[in-house]
Amino acid sequence: MPQFDKKHGYPGKLFIVEGVDGSGKSTQVALLKKWLESEGYSVFFTEWNSSDLVKETTRDGKKKNILTPTTFSLLHATDFADRLNYQIIPPLKAGMIVLADRYAYTAFARDTVRGVSPQWVRNLYNFAVKPDISFYFDVPIQTACERILTNRAQIKFHEAGMDLELSKDTKESFKIFQGKIMEEYKKMVGEFSLTSIDATLEIHDQQEIVRGKVKENLKGYLKKRTIYARRPKVFWRKFSLS
Amino acid sequence: MPQFDKKHGYPGKLFIVEGVDGSGKSTQVALLKKWLESEGYSVFFTEWNSSDLVKETTRDGKKKNILTPTTFSLLHATDFADRLNYQIIPPLKAGMIVLADRYAYTAFARDTVRGVSPQWVRNLYNFAVKPDISFYFDVPIQTACERILTNRAQIKFHEAGMDLELSKDTKESFKIFQGKIMEEYKKMVGEFSLTSIDATLEIHDQQEIVRGKVKENLKGYLKKRTIYARRPKVFWRKFSLS
Repeated sequence: MPQFDKKHGYPGKLFIVEGVDGSGKSTQVALLKKWLESEGYSVFFTEWNSSDLVKETTRDGKKKNILTPTTFSLLHATDFADRLNYQIIPPLKAGMIVLADRYAYTAFARDTVRGVSPQWVRNLYNFAVKPDISFYFDVPIQTACERILTNRAQIKFHEAGMDLELSKDTKESFKIFQGKIMEEYKKMVGEFSLTSIDATLEIHDQQEIVRGKVKENLKGYLKKRTIYARRPKVFWRKFSLS
Repeated sequence: MPQFDKKHGYPGKLFIVEGVDGSGKSTQVALLKKWLESEGYSVFFTEWNSSDLVKETTRDGKKKNILTPTTFSLLHATDFADRLNYQIIPPLKAGMIVLADRYAYTAFARDTVRGVSPQWVRNLYNFAVKPDISFYFDVPIQTACERILTNRAQIKFHEAGMDLELSKDTKESFKIFQGKIMEEYKKMVGEFSLTSIDATLEIHDQQEIVRGKVKENLKGYLKKRTIYARRPKVFWRKFSLS
């Protein structure tokens, strides 16, 4: 299996975005995707917690609130392992650019806040592929919370960290929970050499910085113009005997 | 969370049995349970892979053969974490004797044979409670395989390790797979100070040895005569004001 502390040897590239809810990372990765595609790159996008394998189990467990921090953490890792294997590694092997909205760092932050050992959860994800760039969108906690709390009618139970019993008020709990998560992210910037982006800048200005870093990383990378699924077809057409 | 390399501090006792399929461990633990109960102990029995939480997911994944060694390992760990939390720790806290048919060592053996890193899977289970005695039923591979292959009409796909593509013949694959698992067990006897029992002895003779070890371990243990669920009732009857 790959190892999280070693550079991967796949021909593709893996760029990921991290940050608290409301840091603007999803907007930035969406803009990055559009730009890369317009430049002719073959891009694959993947999100946290999106594998079919454990979706139902996680939903059920959350609904009944029967999950302990350890089972919660293990379910997310299982989801991630499945997604890594079917959505991340194959396009990387095919030389594509993979963009991920949240990565193992999300688990390191959240699970640690929920009470599992920081070292244990880092070992747990040791099968993950090390990203080529990990962007961290750094924003004051107040700004992030305002963005979320004014734009959403409702904050979900686990999203607000209500299982941690930080406060009986959902909004208050959300703020404390996000604050604790941010503390974990701040520790990781140095630990994992995350590329920190000032997320208080204008959207356009942040995107310029992100593109600059990506461009630099793509030097020497062989652009794939065809998408993965189409390659065999092209191959056989080219070398067909008929 | 508890730590696998440290003695637990619960008032109860945890005795577990391990060994390859056909080693006779389930017979031995069943006899041990009957004996302990007849001696007036309050006993709780639990089996490997029996939590409701991930049962369906594991079954589905197995059926479709879409699980990689890592996801397979993580699903088993999730099952175990759930079971530990709801079936093992509560009776231990209540001072009961918990008997487990298979424990984390089963994962260490099987997952390592399936290809995950031995160190990674050991770290993965670091949240587990260290058993008071871990019995390992040591039997020649030939004997174990004969017992299973003559008593069963069919060996399941994963039970035979068919996912490892060791052989196209189920029985042959089963033998090779069990042999590899046994090698892992043999390494663990020293590593985890497992209590090795000669499983070629008569059932009765093995049981005598097992009971002897358990008796020794129970010295100083305060016997619980009432079962966990009934305790509050007894309490209120005794101290009722009416």
